[in-house]
Amino acid sequence: MRVCWSAGGRLSVPVRALARSGRGVPVDRVLTLVAVTVYLDHAATTPVRPEVAARYAQELTRVGNPSSLHSAGRDARRRLEEAREQLAAAVGAEPAEVIFTSGGTEADNLALKGGYWARRTADAALRTVAVSSVEHHAVLEAAEWLGTHESADVRRLRVGGDGVLDLAHAEEVLGRGGVAVVSVMWVNNETGAVQPVREVAALAHAAGVPVHSDAVQAVGHVPVDFAGSGLDAMSLSGHKLGAPVGTGALVARRSFGLEPVEHGGGQERGVRSGTLAVAGACALALAVESAVAEQAAEATRLRRLRDRLVAAVVATLDGVTLTGPAIDVPGGDDARRHPGIAHLTVEGADADALLLGLDMAGIAASSGSACHAGVQEASHVLLAMGRDAERARSALRFSLGRTTTDADVDAVVSALPAVVENARRAHATRRSSRAASSGRTGGGHTPLASAGSSGGQV
Amino acid sequence: MRVCWSAGGRLSVPVRALARSGRGVPVDRVLTLVAVTVYLDHAATTPVRPEVAARYAQELTRVGNPSSLHSAGRDARRRLEEAREQLAAAVGAEPAEVIFTSGGTEADNLALKGGYWARRTADAALRTVAVSSVEHHAVLEAAEWLGTHESADVRRLRVGGDGVLDLAHAEEVLGRGGVAVVSVMWVNNETGAVQPVREVAALAHAAGVPVHSDAVQAVGHVPVDFAGSGLDAMSLSGHKLGAPVGTGALVARRSFGLEPVEHGGGQERGVRSGTLAVAGACALALAVESAVAEQAAEATRLRRLRDRLVAAVVATLDGVTLTGPAIDVPGGDDARRHPGIAHLTVEGADADALLLGLDMAGIAASSGSACHAGVQEASHVLLAMGRDAERARSALRFSLGRTTTDADVDAVVSALPAVVENARRAHATRRSSRAASSGRTGGGHTPLASAGSSGGQV
Repeated sequence: MRVCWSAGGRLSVPVRALARSGRGVPVDRVLTLVAVTVYLDHAATTPVRPEVAARYAQELTRVGNPSSLHSAGRDARRRLEEAREQLAAAVGAEPAEVIFTSGGTEADNLALKGGYWARRTADAALRTVAVSSVEHHAVLEAAEWLGTHESADVRRLRVGGDGVLDLAHAEEVLGRGGVAVVSVMWVNNETGAVQPVREVAALAHAAGVPVHSDAVQAVGHVPVDFAGSGLDAMSLSGHKLGAPVGTGALVARRSFGLEPVEHGGGQERGVRSGTLAVAGACALALAVESAVAEQAAEATRLRRLRDRLVAAVVATLDGVTLTGPAIDVPGGDDARRHPGIAHLTVEGADADALLLGLDMAGIAASSGSACHAGVQEASHVLLAMGRDAERARSALRFSLGRTTTDADVDAVVSALPAVVENARRAHATRRSSRAASSGRTGGGHTPLASAGSSGGQV
Repeated sequence: MRVCWSAGGRLSVPVRALARSGRGVPVDRVLTLVAVTVYLDHAATTPVRPEVAARYAQELTRVGNPSSLHSAGRDARRRLEEAREQLAAAVGAEPAEVIFTSGGTEADNLALKGGYWARRTADAALRTVAVSSVEHHAVLEAAEWLGTHESADVRRLRVGGDGVLDLAHAEEVLGRGGVAVVSVMWVNNETGAVQPVREVAALAHAAGVPVHSDAVQAVGHVPVDFAGSGLDAMSLSGHKLGAPVGTGALVARRSFGLEPVEHGGGQERGVRSGTLAVAGACALALAVESAVAEQAAEATRLRRLRDRLVAAVVATLDGVTLTGPAIDVPGGDDARRHPGIAHLTVEGADADALLLGLDMAGIAASSGSACHAGVQEASHVLLAMGRDAERARSALRFSLGRTTTDADVDAVVSALPAVVENARRAHATRRSSRAASSGRTGGGHTPLASAGSSGGQV
């Protein structure tokens, strides 16, 4: 029996409490408890790589602000610049193109807002911000804020039923002129669909528009070459590839004008102020280098696990379908998918019930993205793909990663039928009571239950 | 002979290289090399506390996004909320008042911009941003950006010759009306002067204006009680008190309206998006708790060291004076000073030459703040205190901290006379050559030399 990654030490606590209570703990019970943690939510956050944790810890024994003139400062600066070179080399960029940030969200905000402001300052007629309709909230909300606060004209670029960008629509929007910046993610975080960023870059450049891509789910998971992509900027995040949360970067060509979002000491080309985080940069660079080096082999390994999971689940359970581009088609669309993401639709079941059932079976999964305010809302990604709200709430994402094994897939295949059955029963009960309530009140609304208030935002 | 804190491991590398070269390393040479690192730049960044590094490392062995609904996510959320409670308790705040950020710069930007936008949205006439003239660049540049980009009317509040806020001027500016937000730092990072934040809060509230304070150099160094201060918001930074760079918080009353600066998933009350960094929050909270618990005893210890340093230097060297409120005055102004900061003016010497000389003697100090672009500019803080540019370039800051000992003070007292003599000679030579050059060209300008290009910004 395998001892899995400890998810927050949650299992050791009750065991210790039982031991303290003097009631004793049967050994097989301990093993069962420990063995049930199957972490299949790597797209939400993935374990830190041991070599990265060691690198970070090593940096924490050192002191020196890279902006200081003394030896300690210059040494810190040297290590930071080495990290910049290491990261740049791993993603096909120049060191001077790397702007360290606190994560993907800050990188997206800098690209969208900083890029918009710089372009609008150069030409007041450039007021359109074009983003795909399936972007991460960091891009969508930044764009919406530019709309409400900075009078930007926000255009959402359409996707097809498979979640892949509609290039004809992108071309049409770009052709209208007045576009300050366009942003299309590299890999969708919910469905795993790979977007045609190279084609978008070509269309944007033909229209003279700079193009950004949120590559948070791409770097280390699919082949990424910044120079070859034609992009002007791309965001990456440390905690999606084995570095700590709170690390990230915007990789941006020098020709991509950026106004700062965070003002202060003028670090990072003057566009991202804040004391330079050497430990974070070193950890991020090493994680990116490791993830990119292992990407091809890891993609092959994860694809096999993912395909086995999908095939087994779809074969066993009626009304369960894979979202997005088809897999397992010879010469097919696999290059259009993140190798570790399996996004399923479970007809007649709500995501929160599915997640709760899986959690009780010791399996960590997601409905597509870390929830907002502890309540499952219908995914904007699935709605953009043409799903109705009902089906958009029946989503289940398994995201596989570095620590995933065949045993994890076995655990899902074994547990899912009962979980789905229970979730469908709950859904049917809720539906009939809602129908009854609707009949009584002429249109009442029963909010979906939260799976736990501790999952809510502050 | 004491083995000092390793400043970036800089000394171990040449020693190892020598050992590899087979040339052998005389033991006394190794000890000399190791012993020369005297780190007296704690206000730029201070070593991470060992218990904090251990706490961070412990968190890196766990996985879970606090916004996820499964057990791993809920456990991560619980640890994050415990960190929030721990931090809040240490600074006299409520847990719900803590907004985790990537550091002091982001917290300052959120308070200034977010506070300004929220107030202006509520009342379009509120367009003034009042900040002290000695603020950190994170506050000053955020305010200036609001001026140039958001049509704010930026007012700089005057300070006296000791660097302490002129309350009468603050009252006058607040009395004119139309103030959206006022920001006055708690402790100045260059001079160590403690500002009358409680009095500013009272004046601001009398005028109905919310007040923010950059408390980055205050928390853990002077007594800080958020509730008792009357402030609406204060910024703090991890790496000034023993947590890693990249951690920080804005502590803000719920009544202080804030628009987000970073948009996305809506974490942290919807005003600070980005995946919640559990390891960083736990490390920050522990560092704050430890620093605050030790503050009184540590202040007594550091004051003694600082006073010994200042007394010895001022007694030995002509033309060296302490900047800011007097120390060592019975019943005097010590409550008006950071206990570990000694800011000196060395007449007839340039800061860069002083720092270079000290660095060659193995002593890390600063001219007042980590430099911009590798070139020492006259400090805006000293200019605001009425210094001319020439004297403002003669600044030397020693900032003492947790690892500082009597041996460090001895090292400065021993090395400084020769360093000052050399710097004064260089200054005199440069001055006479500048006068000659000026005579030839009718007003040429010789830029100050950088102490090393690796100290420059990217």
